[in-house]
Amino acid sequence: MLLADIGNTRAHIYDGKSIIHISHEEAIKSYKDKELFYICVSIETKEKIKEFADWIDISDHLHIKGEYETMGIDRKALCLSHKNGVFVDAGSAITVDIVSNGEYQGGFILLGIDAWLKAYKGISNALDVEINRHCSLTGLPKTTKDGISYGIIASIKAVIDSQTSHLPLYFTGGDGKWLSKYFKNSIYDEFLVFKGMKTALKENKC
Amino acid sequence: MLLADIGNTRAHIYDGKSIIHISHEEAIKSYKDKELFYICVSIETKEKIKEFADWIDISDHLHIKGEYETMGIDRKALCLSHKNGVFVDAGSAITVDIVSNGEYQGGFILLGIDAWLKAYKGISNALDVEINRHCSLTGLPKTTKDGISYGIIASIKAVIDSQTSHLPLYFTGGDGKWLSKYFKNSIYDEFLVFKGMKTALKENKC
Repeated sequence: MLLADIGNTRAHIYDGKSIIHISHEEAIKSYKDKELFYICVSIETKEKIKEFADWIDISDHLHIKGEYETMGIDRKALCLSHKNGVFVDAGSAITVDIVSNGEYQGGFILLGIDAWLKAYKGISNALDVEINRHCSLTGLPKTTKDGISYGIIASIKAVIDSQTSHLPLYFTGGDGKWLSKYFKNSIYDEFLVFKGMKTALKENKC
Repeated sequence: MLLADIGNTRAHIYDGKSIIHISHEEAIKSYKDKELFYICVSIETKEKIKEFADWIDISDHLHIKGEYETMGIDRKALCLSHKNGVFVDAGSAITVDIVSNGEYQGGFILLGIDAWLKAYKGISNALDVEINRHCSLTGLPKTTKDGISYGIIASIKAVIDSQTSHLPLYFTGGDGKWLSKYFKNSIYDEFLVFKGMKTALKENKC
């Protein structure tokens, strides 16, 4: 069974063993005639693919107690992966969602790393830097590059840590593996969204 | 004596009593022929104004022990305003700088509120919202607007709170007054940068 999580910038396709990350166009080109169960947050791509005979939108099967009306479908899938957890999906945006005893408690949205960097550049060319992915959070920075890197990483870390949760802390998404290293006892799992999709399909006997 | 702090988007002019906030063009038009001491972070505007006979760039007079080479001149001025403090300047960018016993300890750079919002919009139209300036930080949000508002405000608050400082916490800048309300015992002072400029001018007997 093929599952697809179509994000704002990339499509993530899971064949039961591994995930490939490709552009929306590549996904359509390579998989259009294969049976595939998908969720999609891109309004534009959703419009394109809705008539594909072999592609099945499973959004209507994904529900979690406590969900809100406009909650992103990828966040719902993520929150269905485990009954308890703080779920961080670090992609184009960084979403942080909390689930306790299978009930959605709420969550918030931070910027993805690329969006942060682009936004600094938009303020001033003097703030146009690459992130230092090894930036130490002990000791205060004294360069623009580290001042920005610290600003990004320490603020993401501080707001997640401030949730003071006894729940397991899960990371997924393109920057999830790297970001998880700043958190003690965190779990990185690239399959979380697909686990949630599989749970929903199973419960709905699809 | 007129003092000007020329930022990336606006010019702030202080006449010893109050501050006016105007565009760079308006500042040039209204004050070109008046004696004025300035600092300027905009490379473009700096180029335009450097030949004005009555405008004096005081950047070279602003120094603080522990400063780094590429430290923004407005941050130096801010850090000269008091011998001890955590200084938050909430403008186009939000800078956070720490000074202890007159010595600069380091600092970091966050995005200004407008830059945050523009960056969310850049990720997806679904994230194009206004900030809820009354967003509560107790309890987790369950709407996109509050999920974004919480993400912005709670992460700024958490990273500043995580400095665990015994130093006074000062706010300045366009969003400083509003943002300071999320911090107990914080001090909002719109004159901080000008206080620092005056201190530097006094010490240099200008």
